[in-house]
Amino acid sequence: MPQDPDSTTRRIAASFAKQGLMDHLGARLGHVGRGVAHIHLPMRPEVTQQHGYFHGGATATIADNAGGYAALTMFDDDSEVLTVELKINLLAPAAGEELEAIGTVLKTGRTLTVCRIDVHAHHGRETKLVAAGQQTLIRVAR
Amino acid sequence: MPQDPDSTTRRIAASFAKQGLMDHLGARLGHVGRGVAHIHLPMRPEVTQQHGYFHGGATATIADNAGGYAALTMFDDDSEVLTVELKINLLAPAAGEELEAIGTVLKTGRTLTVCRIDVHAHHGRETKLVAAGQQTLIRVAR
Amino acid sequence: MPQDPDSTTRRIAASFAKQGLMDHLGARLGHVGRGVAHIHLPMRPEVTQQHGYFHGGATATIADNAGGYAALTMFDDDSEVLTVELKINLLAPAAGEELEAIGTVLKTGRTLTVCRIDVHAHHGRETKLVAAGQQTLIRVAR
Amino acid sequence: MPQDPDSTTRRIAASFAKQGLMDHLGARLGHVGRGVAHIHLPMRPEVTQQHGYFHGGATATIADNAGGYAALTMFDDDSEVLTVELKINLLAPAAGEELEAIGTVLKTGRTLTVCRIDVHAHHGRETKLVAAGQQTLIRVAR
Repeated sequence: MPQDPDSTTRRIAASFAKQGLMDHLGARLGHVGRGVAHIHLPMRPEVTQQHGYFHGGATATIADNAGGYAALTMFDDDSEVLTVELKINLLAPAAGEELEAIGTVLKTGRTLTVCRIDVHAHHGRETKLVAAGQQTLIRVAR
Repeated sequence: MPQDPDSTTRRIAASFAKQGLMDHLGARLGHVGRGVAHIHLPMRPEVTQQHGYFHGGATATIADNAGGYAALTMFDDDSEVLTVELKINLLAPAAGEELEAIGTVLKTGRTLTVCRIDVHAHHGRETKLVAAGQQTLIRVAR
Repeated sequence: MPQDPDSTTRRIAASFAKQGLMDHLGARLGHVGRGVAHIHLPMRPEVTQQHGYFHGGATATIADNAGGYAALTMFDDDSEVLTVELKINLLAPAAGEELEAIGTVLKTGRTLTVCRIDVHAHHGRETKLVAAGQQTLIRVAR
Repeated sequence: MPQDPDSTTRRIAASFAKQGLMDHLGARLGHVGRGVAHIHLPMRPEVTQQHGYFHGGATATIADNAGGYAALTMFDDDSEVLTVELKINLLAPAAGEELEAIGTVLKTGRTLTVCRIDVHAHHGRETKLVAAGQQTLIRVAR
């Protein structure tokens, strides 16, 4: 278990920075706390599907990462987590200026961690739940 | 049901071309047949996770599209399909020169279609199953 | 939308009573409110797996029903809901005197409803989350 | 890895016999081979939902077991497998004299195994795919 929240945050920021896809999509890491992580994705034509909404794949990508980093907060610096599987429901067209994926740890064990993820679209002053998922991750030694 | 396979292929190619995310990731549409569609994704730093493998989100994205276009081949030009939900297992590190997602329709109904998706990594002369998914889609009038 | 909560409760109780499997397993309907439904399953040898815990299939069964009846509370008496798909994580061995599955509606639309389901095991004075799921349902005319 | 197929079959039959739920539902173990297992469930009022079809929970239960025993064939007698999570699509009303769930191993690793499961309904001379699933399992020492 991590003793030092700053160390956890730095570790997650460093991992995020190494993910070529995050930078390429324009995603950024938001709030990170024990058992929770947020990822933000601003709207750009580069993340859309055929109708101009956020692509379901982009939504799934930040959901996957939000859950992954939420899980990582539960372990010390010698551990890594990998996604075993992700299930996501796309609840509504993902329209708006920005998506925000919030991953929350539901259960953590020695080997496996299970997270739930909510993805909200921010559109003007409105916030709408546009996707909801559940994810299994495995801890591995670094 | 589509009478004209060329019309179906053209329709899918047109939809694919409108997805900003596909072009941005460098994905391309491969073989499309009745109830099946392939999407290819070449390796580039822009699609990686922190270890240099294909990002699970990139894998999920082409899996989602392969299933979606496989489903779309089952309907006429007045129909569209939207992903209701996607579940994907990441079976192995996705290393190699290219990913290929193959979506296959398992069951189609008036409203809902269910697909299975396999994602293979091509690495030199080797091909490895790196992800497997199952997806539910809904048909909507255009 | 149902105007009369009593009518909804009666309708759900009547549907539950017609499910041969519920009676056979010894499950009973608990609290039902708008967008939420509880199902209880007492421990008996008839619902166990090979180690004497609740069988994952029994857990999945009451989870499926809790989500289904939660969804049904959102619609009028002319509607029914059918499970499209269910995803469930078994988080811990399901030991105890009773399981309680709580289905909660996350999003409801004209055609599809998505629920989350938590299953708790009651063991003496302790309550433990032993399973968590997500479910898609479709509304059909009666 | 099991050297002796008879030992594997005996081990699975013994595990099946210890599951109170299987006997209570009237399920029986069918063909078991390397990476594959079948479970049969005859129609009885005790396994139905409110319209007299097989209950989705009964379908999920034999799907879970078919995948679980398929996974177990891949390991030696000192190992056991537990379901981590199961996702199942109910594709059509499950009507007929008998359900048959067929679990097939897609990928096996040191810790995790992933299976696909098909559930067919046998109705007179007809066989229909009524459910399809994907499942993650974890190997544990006995």
